[in-house]
Amino acid sequence: MSSAPVKLKIYAEMLEKELERLMPKEECLQSEIFEACRYSLLEGGKRLRPFFCMTFFELCGGKAEDALSFAAGIEMIQSYSLIHDDLPCMDDSDYRRGKLSNHKVYGYSTAVLAGDALLNRAFEVFTSPMEGIKPLDQLAAANVMGTASGVYGMVGGQVIDLALENRQCTAEELEKMVSLKTGALIAGSCKSGCCLAGASLEKAEAAYNFGMAVGLAFQIRDDMLDLVGSSEQVGKPMGSDAENNKNTYASVYGLEKCEQLVKELTDKALESASVFGEEGKAVLSEIALWLINRTY
Amino acid sequence: MSSAPVKLKIYAEMLEKELERLMPKEECLQSEIFEACRYSLLEGGKRLRPFFCMTFFELCGGKAEDALSFAAGIEMIQSYSLIHDDLPCMDDSDYRRGKLSNHKVYGYSTAVLAGDALLNRAFEVFTSPMEGIKPLDQLAAANVMGTASGVYGMVGGQVIDLALENRQCTAEELEKMVSLKTGALIAGSCKSGCCLAGASLEKAEAAYNFGMAVGLAFQIRDDMLDLVGSSEQVGKPMGSDAENNKNTYASVYGLEKCEQLVKELTDKALESASVFGEEGKAVLSEIALWLINRTY
Repeated sequence: MSSAPVKLKIYAEMLEKELERLMPKEECLQSEIFEACRYSLLEGGKRLRPFFCMTFFELCGGKAEDALSFAAGIEMIQSYSLIHDDLPCMDDSDYRRGKLSNHKVYGYSTAVLAGDALLNRAFEVFTSPMEGIKPLDQLAAANVMGTASGVYGMVGGQVIDLALENRQCTAEELEKMVSLKTGALIAGSCKSGCCLAGASLEKAEAAYNFGMAVGLAFQIRDDMLDLVGSSEQVGKPMGSDAENNKNTYASVYGLEKCEQLVKELTDKALESASVFGEEGKAVLSEIALWLINRTY
Repeated sequence: MSSAPVKLKIYAEMLEKELERLMPKEECLQSEIFEACRYSLLEGGKRLRPFFCMTFFELCGGKAEDALSFAAGIEMIQSYSLIHDDLPCMDDSDYRRGKLSNHKVYGYSTAVLAGDALLNRAFEVFTSPMEGIKPLDQLAAANVMGTASGVYGMVGGQVIDLALENRQCTAEELEKMVSLKTGALIAGSCKSGCCLAGASLEKAEAAYNFGMAVGLAFQIRDDMLDLVGSSEQVGKPMGSDAENNKNTYASVYGLEKCEQLVKELTDKALESASVFGEEGKAVLSEIALWLINRTY
């Protein structure tokens, strides 16, 4: 397994500091909500979506630092969605990345509010004054994220996921669900970076398509690893989709067909990446291939 | 009891159509989320916050129609907050305005997601292209709403409210709670109308102060009516704060002191309104006095 691209680590470190700045500890009557938000937000992780936003911003001529706060807002959306996904009324997960889930630590009501708080804060950040960004570009980028995370995006995907639980779904339904639940936010993160830089519609669309292909391939790989993992280690990983009778690419298509789909999506992603020139294609291929071919 | 200002009704009708347009019925795999959002969003009501946004926009030289979609976004935030407030893990309310609450009709998970969807959609709307609005003004207005509804606003107030449950609170804690939980969104709605129109900081701040004073006075009147109602009609209204052992102005101060506070806040509101000239003061006094002195 190759190690993570160096740039991913550098940006993740920049982002950690920015998140700390944007969601600080606060001494006030509602200090608990800041704690609860920080518990889920500042737990490290790949910070993939912010990375894509900053990278596309750079590839469209921007200076990565200028997109840092926007990228931090994107991570807040990701964090809010995980907190709400884990709630007892949703996936009822006690753990998230080896830590107790938010509601197990802070209680049900605070976890709902922590999710709400992070989502609100994300858009507060998206609309805050930003150096080096034109207001019209900033509006367009924020709008892309609103679409990516709402009824036509991630929330819509979550609704479909819940609706499909405990019944066999069609390939079409599965693709729609994963496109919205996982693909939309990654694709939106890529596109928003282009919008922030005032790039052409062609580039913005290519970035979206790149992100969607990578997002789908990423999820299929996840499903495959999950299936192998849960058959290899009985009882682990806890709460995996494979064990929850959820529809996944691996359960609907089988491993062999999944491998083929991943290959097709990788080709699609790299084709979209070519709009960003030789340098762009090199950067984007590295991250895409690393993500898609990971073995853990 | 005087009837509602005519303008409030006219704007409410305009808004109803706009909300219908912005949250339509959709035939898709996730159609249920649109239904659930529409159930809570399109139930009529005073539409007070959008009214304030549009009215201040007009008073600062704008044409009310140009602020209509932004105002609709504000109502989505209000609607999201009510859905999440009613959840079993929060206030556990089975009814809202005489109708079953969202989670009683659509279930717990869909209600959480409907709230999330409305909040996302609000910011998607805030950042959509708007005729007659300068991008920088639109960003500023959207940012005001993000602050008003998040950790430093409504969500923060809800956290304090839950923390103060079942214990006596101080006057200071109560004011902080109500300022954030109820005042911030009304004040933000007023201020955002000014920002949208590119008004001066002086006007934007006066609008905020007006909204905060009206919001507090409105809540105190609510608490007073609630207390009288629950002692007059045993067992009704169901789920009122007065019966849930919640801290309210009426329970902390008593009715007489409440009446005095309402008077002081009314004076404060009218003083802030004077920044908007004779016409502005007339319009704002009418709505403020109607809201604050209502007897139902």
